[in-house]
Amino acid sequence: MIQDLIDELGRLPGIGPKSAQRIAFHLLDSDPDDVNRFAATLVSVKEKVHFCQTCGNVTTDPLCRVCADPRRDVSVLCVVEESKDVIAIERTREFRGRYHVLGGAINPIAGIGPDQLRIKELFQRLSDGAITEVIIATDPNLEGEATATYLVRQLSTLGLKVSKLASGLPVGGDLEYADEVTLGRAFEGRTTVAAS
Amino acid sequence: MIQDLIDELGRLPGIGPKSAQRIAFHLLDSDPDDVNRFAATLVSVKEKVHFCQTCGNVTTDPLCRVCADPRRDVSVLCVVEESKDVIAIERTREFRGRYHVLGGAINPIAGIGPDQLRIKELFQRLSDGAITEVIIATDPNLEGEATATYLVRQLSTLGLKVSKLASGLPVGGDLEYADEVTLGRAFEGRTTVAAS
Repeated sequence: MIQDLIDELGRLPGIGPKSAQRIAFHLLDSDPDDVNRFAATLVSVKEKVHFCQTCGNVTTDPLCRVCADPRRDVSVLCVVEESKDVIAIERTREFRGRYHVLGGAINPIAGIGPDQLRIKELFQRLSDGAITEVIIATDPNLEGEATATYLVRQLSTLGLKVSKLASGLPVGGDLEYADEVTLGRAFEGRTTVAAS
Repeated sequence: MIQDLIDELGRLPGIGPKSAQRIAFHLLDSDPDDVNRFAATLVSVKEKVHFCQTCGNVTTDPLCRVCADPRRDVSVLCVVEESKDVIAIERTREFRGRYHVLGGAINPIAGIGPDQLRIKELFQRLSDGAITEVIIATDPNLEGEATATYLVRQLSTLGLKVSKLASGLPVGGDLEYADEVTLGRAFEGRTTVAAS
């Protein structure tokens, strides 16, 4: 029984057998209400969270918090790989536009091409001309750079301002692990790669 | 909603905010059946697990697996602080006796004295004379040593064999990285391997 819980915890990313055991015994010592609330949160997150109709960010409503906020600048769009990248960028408080979440990056080895990402949806959003600047904020690794290169090539025909986050993000890392200051600087120093 | 789950995960021991976020998004990507099973395991562990009537180890039955096993040697008792110590010792396959789980260690600063531990129950188990050897396996730290010293003093009146786990160098480690206390203990407890 306890071993079942240790096994479940050990399947989570970054949790080894020793940590799993430590957490399991911590939960055994915890208040039952706390554990029940934790379990209920797990189930309800899974039931209620889905993707924003507009940008693909995770949300419990039809539109995510950013898309539903009328104060956000509708003329600037930041393209990211994952919802966790939205959280990371929101923490910097540097960006007041909206997002487009691709749902991943181009990765031929894993069989992920442009068609597996929300790129068609991106171009649909750009079609009415309300968006005048696109900031590409894919991860600074091989797949993210490939995705950025692909997007720059596709977007350069549309007469938009297209920029990429400044280098300064450590190459080979994950955007979600960048600290707020570094990520904020990268926003400030973004470089134009195609101009109208 | 997702932040609720990240907060819940962040309260677990050894899980920082970044790990909590990573695990939350991993769970969002997981199969709903897996997440539901995880949540159900959490709740049922909390409902069903209690302490063994005899030794204080965690169990889902009236007696724990060790106490219920007729092949275990009833004459040797190993005294540990916590149920996780039982798991650790069982993994060694070195010990075929039974356990007594104290539920902690003597810690005057935290207000834990002998009366807060299952020491009265220990002496009840020793009263019928079936147990002839007691191995004290408390943690090799200040509180564990204080508890061991207390137990040795109490047990010495009963005419039992009482032993403590050996202190020394961890197997697989480097001598140069051992701390002074451990190395000192290893010297004190050196074993004769050839005699003149």
